[in-house]
Amino acid sequence: MPDFIFKKTLIIGVGLIGSSLARGLKNKKISNLVIGYDKNNVVKEKCKNLNFLDSILDNLNIIEEIDLIVLCSPLGSYNEILKEICTKIKSKCIITDVGSTKVSVVKNFNDFNSNKFIEFVPGHPIAGLEKSGPEYGFEDLFENRYCILTTENKDQESVKKISKMWEMLGMKIEFMNAEHHDRVLAMTSHIPQLIAYSIVATTAELEENIKEEIIKYSAAGFRDFTRLAGSDPIMWRDVYILNKDSVLEMLGRFTEDLTSLQKAIRNEDKERLEKIFSLTKDIRKNIEKAGQAGTFDPREKKS
Amino acid sequence: MPDFIFKKTLIIGVGLIGSSLARGLKNKKISNLVIGYDKNNVVKEKCKNLNFLDSILDNLNIIEEIDLIVLCSPLGSYNEILKEICTKIKSKCIITDVGSTKVSVVKNFNDFNSNKFIEFVPGHPIAGLEKSGPEYGFEDLFENRYCILTTENKDQESVKKISKMWEMLGMKIEFMNAEHHDRVLAMTSHIPQLIAYSIVATTAELEENIKEEIIKYSAAGFRDFTRLAGSDPIMWRDVYILNKDSVLEMLGRFTEDLTSLQKAIRNEDKERLEKIFSLTKDIRKNIEKAGQAGTFDPREKKS
Repeated sequence: MPDFIFKKTLIIGVGLIGSSLARGLKNKKISNLVIGYDKNNVVKEKCKNLNFLDSILDNLNIIEEIDLIVLCSPLGSYNEILKEICTKIKSKCIITDVGSTKVSVVKNFNDFNSNKFIEFVPGHPIAGLEKSGPEYGFEDLFENRYCILTTENKDQESVKKISKMWEMLGMKIEFMNAEHHDRVLAMTSHIPQLIAYSIVATTAELEENIKEEIIKYSAAGFRDFTRLAGSDPIMWRDVYILNKDSVLEMLGRFTEDLTSLQKAIRNEDKERLEKIFSLTKDIRKNIEKAGQAGTFDPREKKS
Repeated sequence: MPDFIFKKTLIIGVGLIGSSLARGLKNKKISNLVIGYDKNNVVKEKCKNLNFLDSILDNLNIIEEIDLIVLCSPLGSYNEILKEICTKIKSKCIITDVGSTKVSVVKNFNDFNSNKFIEFVPGHPIAGLEKSGPEYGFEDLFENRYCILTTENKDQESVKKISKMWEMLGMKIEFMNAEHHDRVLAMTSHIPQLIAYSIVATTAELEENIKEEIIKYSAAGFRDFTRLAGSDPIMWRDVYILNKDSVLEMLGRFTEDLTSLQKAIRNEDKERLEKIFSLTKDIRKNIEKAGQAGTFDPREKKS
């Protein structure tokens, strides 16, 4: 019998991330059993048909002999779930999560953490796609990406186990405090996502004929922004509410810079425009050097 | 001898677009001779070494027996170039361009159009990369992309020739008036580009430690925006000055929408956020349906 890290894992919320994780835990023999729960019946049915779980729960009434629970549901659901499960756990169990804000999550957990059997390891595997649902999940989703754990107890057994789990799925582990994580992610993820939503919403309100042409000629730059706008609305709604402070700070900085560019255009200030546009090339070069640029192929897939 | 459309083509400005066009005109036997001019000596030297032109001019003093001139230099240089070349043309010659604003270009040309040998066909092949310079050019750059000609004289011989030229390079031709073109492109290209510059500039001003982390974790969304920010500063500076009105209109609409999202976040207005985020998914789906979504591979090239 292989050397599983976990005997029985419960994944709560079996969408893109949850289902990718479930597949990885089974295929890489990280957990002997992997069971799932999702409050959405459509998702439940899909999971049954896709057949990547050992079983799928109808409710969270009985939580027995589970040594790992992974919260993969929208951040706004954590409170209710923790309230429901924490009192039911009667043996040693690690709870971790995959949410993209961490201050709120740590607070959530501390509010319910009276059960000594539970150890909580807040985590954020930075991986994803603009698709949602268990049918899009695949175990290689995490390959070569970073996973941030916002805990200072690196040597704790539970933290080591969670690190090992993500490493076996191909991730690179980094440690950070929750506040710092939320500020970094506001800029790398939450603001770009918000701008994507905003520019696509702007287009949605334009006259019908020009809207069609914007879609037609979107390869000129617009489409780079729309990819993100295909993501899960509920998940993102919760991110903005729960990372409000950092998001508003970074958004304030961004709109200041945009307003300053707007003014330079209005004043036809060539020198200033050229200066800003030259400066930004360097940042892009650093992203390329860091091996994080991705590959963007301008040719369409022939389908 | 093949049936060339043009006997001798002069390409003014031999960067990414100019050099791609030159390669295509030669390799697809569209023009018998292809000569180039660039006021930048570094570019001139590169062209000589890359050897894709029949010859490269040292200046624009003598323009003889040329039946096609293509302006591929930044929009801000058109005035000076047209002033220099228009009086020297003594035989039938078509001038076309590849600039991404069209109202200003049509006006530029009309200001200098006293020479009856010249016919002007304003054009915009919507193709490009975030790289600049003749070393990055390749003839397939135009394959399957749209080329917009902002003229109403579809049946004019010169327009037919220019259409044929771009079609032979793989482009789909569309006709539009210059004002409409400038508004559509403001939204599909100039605003996304401006936002990309702006968000990257915001990052450049953050504290050093957080800046490094933003680069490290840029795969979370930020990098989609930085690709555009690697583009040519001079070219873009001119675009914003010359398409000022449409850019400011669309930018105004965008910032209104962004401000409204900001307010919803501040007020923790879950319903409004969810509604906007759901609406934008539809636009993205239409882009995918239109075959303009591109392919974005999340895996890095192993280099």
